[in-house]
Amino acid sequence: MLVVKKFGGTSVADKERIFNVARRCVEEYKKGNGVVVVLSAMGKMTDVLIDQAKDINPNPPKRAMDMLLVTGEQTSVALMEMAMDVLGVPAISLTAFQVAMHTTSVYSNARLKRIDTERIRHELEQKKIVIVTGFQGVNKYDDYTTLGRGGSDTTAVALAAALHADKCEIYTDVDGVYTADPRIVPQARKLNEISYDEMLDLATLGAGVLHNRSVEMAKKYGVELVVRSSLNTNEGTVVKEVTKVERMLVSGVAADRNATRISLIGLEDRPGVAFKLFDIIAKANINVDMILQSIGRDNKKDISFTVDENTADAALKVIEENEKSLRYEKVSVKKNVAKISVVGAGMMSNPGVAAKMFECLFNAGINIRMISTSEIRVTVLVDENDCDRAVQSVHDGFGLED
Amino acid sequence: MLVVKKFGGTSVADKERIFNVARRCVEEYKKGNGVVVVLSAMGKMTDVLIDQAKDINPNPPKRAMDMLLVTGEQTSVALMEMAMDVLGVPAISLTAFQVAMHTTSVYSNARLKRIDTERIRHELEQKKIVIVTGFQGVNKYDDYTTLGRGGSDTTAVALAAALHADKCEIYTDVDGVYTADPRIVPQARKLNEISYDEMLDLATLGAGVLHNRSVEMAKKYGVELVVRSSLNTNEGTVVKEVTKVERMLVSGVAADRNATRISLIGLEDRPGVAFKLFDIIAKANINVDMILQSIGRDNKKDISFTVDENTADAALKVIEENEKSLRYEKVSVKKNVAKISVVGAGMMSNPGVAAKMFECLFNAGINIRMISTSEIRVTVLVDENDCDRAVQSVHDGFGLED
Repeated sequence: MLVVKKFGGTSVADKERIFNVARRCVEEYKKGNGVVVVLSAMGKMTDVLIDQAKDINPNPPKRAMDMLLVTGEQTSVALMEMAMDVLGVPAISLTAFQVAMHTTSVYSNARLKRIDTERIRHELEQKKIVIVTGFQGVNKYDDYTTLGRGGSDTTAVALAAALHADKCEIYTDVDGVYTADPRIVPQARKLNEISYDEMLDLATLGAGVLHNRSVEMAKKYGVELVVRSSLNTNEGTVVKEVTKVERMLVSGVAADRNATRISLIGLEDRPGVAFKLFDIIAKANINVDMILQSIGRDNKKDISFTVDENTADAALKVIEENEKSLRYEKVSVKKNVAKISVVGAGMMSNPGVAAKMFECLFNAGINIRMISTSEIRVTVLVDENDCDRAVQSVHDGFGLED
Repeated sequence: MLVVKKFGGTSVADKERIFNVARRCVEEYKKGNGVVVVLSAMGKMTDVLIDQAKDINPNPPKRAMDMLLVTGEQTSVALMEMAMDVLGVPAISLTAFQVAMHTTSVYSNARLKRIDTERIRHELEQKKIVIVTGFQGVNKYDDYTTLGRGGSDTTAVALAAALHADKCEIYTDVDGVYTADPRIVPQARKLNEISYDEMLDLATLGAGVLHNRSVEMAKKYGVELVVRSSLNTNEGTVVKEVTKVERMLVSGVAADRNATRISLIGLEDRPGVAFKLFDIIAKANINVDMILQSIGRDNKKDISFTVDENTADAALKVIEENEKSLRYEKVSVKKNVAKISVVGAGMMSNPGVAAKMFECLFNAGINIRMISTSEIRVTVLVDENDCDRAVQSVHDGFGLED
């Protein structure tokens, strides 16, 4: 069996943790399995490098930034090779150049295009544990690139796909995917299995365990993902194409606190208004999440949308700069809102899920400020103060602790 | 004109110094010259990385060690690209992989075999300053290697040779090559020119400005070297094939304090004795410097040699372990000795140099413990306590301050 294991920055933050990871990999190796390990930069190293760069150049060229950042993962893999040597197991560390990991050309946010597997296969045949730098790649100019957020997870899934690995284990600081954040809902239950689509919705909604980019890739190539803890040997959650006959109605409840709602009131009700608004915002490189447009009335309509609170001021700025061309009557900003979502493939054939969720919130006396739904998800916007109670009440209402 | 400039670790130790280097390179660039910059790792970064490695594995595999160490120079070149961007000049940083710098396979002490110049030439044609990692290479297995001591100087000279650069400037913390160490001899004078051979002898004798490996390579490929300060714009010392009609008798006086003399007394006077002794020592990886063998008498002879004081104990250990096969009567160790050398191409045709040197030392009341000569060098061993007075008296005696 061939297993790809990915460990994040906290899992390799110091000597003790590096050896913890090394021992886990050696255990797998000693079962006779092929092991490919993908590592992130140690602990806060990436942040330290960014600070170092910004001290030199507040707006560092992205190419140089990637050249600098990739030293983080290279440090991790070199030290891991040394740790495995102490444990007496042959291991070899490889950078994106050595593998090679081909990406698109864009720096700081490249996408993986192709992975050469020859070197890795050769090293696996030599019975070595292969340790690969996550997060990084090489573009057609022969320059280092980095993959942006969720990059190391994506490296791991892409390697698993390219090597036709039997599974891809993503090690994290939680035991797996839960029906809700256990810090909010103590009765939250770990899921043994979840489908790619459900995981995607949870990831997008800020459940934080996996980045949706890696889940998308796993779904596309049918890579079996396992989310598990680097701190214990519990089984974790398997993410795959679940084909149970009786699906659970709802798999979990997710919350994302860092939202701000921006509403443009009294826009003209004519074609192209929404396009113009979101084009301006996209060009400012601001991600928009929920979007809601009121039904037009008296030739006027309102558009509300949520953005990450970090980008709220920037979004407001570009809107005000374009006041004349957007022609709105008023813009209102509501900070400190939270998105609460229920996710479950079962709800496709169960129209009562949304109503049930609204009932739970009503019973808890929580005001709903915005609603958005997809086939397997219902999301509502509530005041941030109500967030924890909202999650708890929905978790209780759907009986997820059982 | 194409210039290769090499800056060591202290020259890029912090933000201020990085910008100092960047400005110097930009100045050259603005004269319309092509500029290739070779950088070492920042300040103590290499030491920090070594400590980090040894904390994980007291005896780290050399391949992994090189994988770790090369992140040092990569950090330097990435930050330098950012600094040059601040100064508004197009620059590009390249690793050994990107160049590519082909080396022999041995880790931690590889030798450069071939440098591809295509990428660098392409970037120079785009009117960019090209910033290259010193000290590192890539071997035939597509793995990172490092070049060992004097590595970054060697990278710079090799690049200058491969690119047919007009000169190779080695920036250091002194103004150039002096007739003696100015800390010992205040009247020491900076040389404007010195020949490769004289520089080689001075380098070997611990003058410390250049590593002999880089001087050897410069001589082989006829690269004009300039040793100059990164702290001022003084002219420095040019190292080249000097062909002056009237040569200076002596170019300089060098001192090396870290020597220990080991003497084997009463060895049998038969063939193979010296071979056996130095073979044993070579196999223990200990470098021997001066060697002196007494004239045989009564079928007995003595052999004395000097080693670096750090390796003296190890040398003594292997000698004592081989006491039976070496068959000596006694071994004596004299620590705290210093080598004083006068170097000068002029002495080839001036047999009086050695005598003159001995006279200076006699006048200063300094006892000579060992003598060794080459065509352009006379070296004596003295007590370390006498070192500074010896250098001063020889410097005075040859009138080097004029």
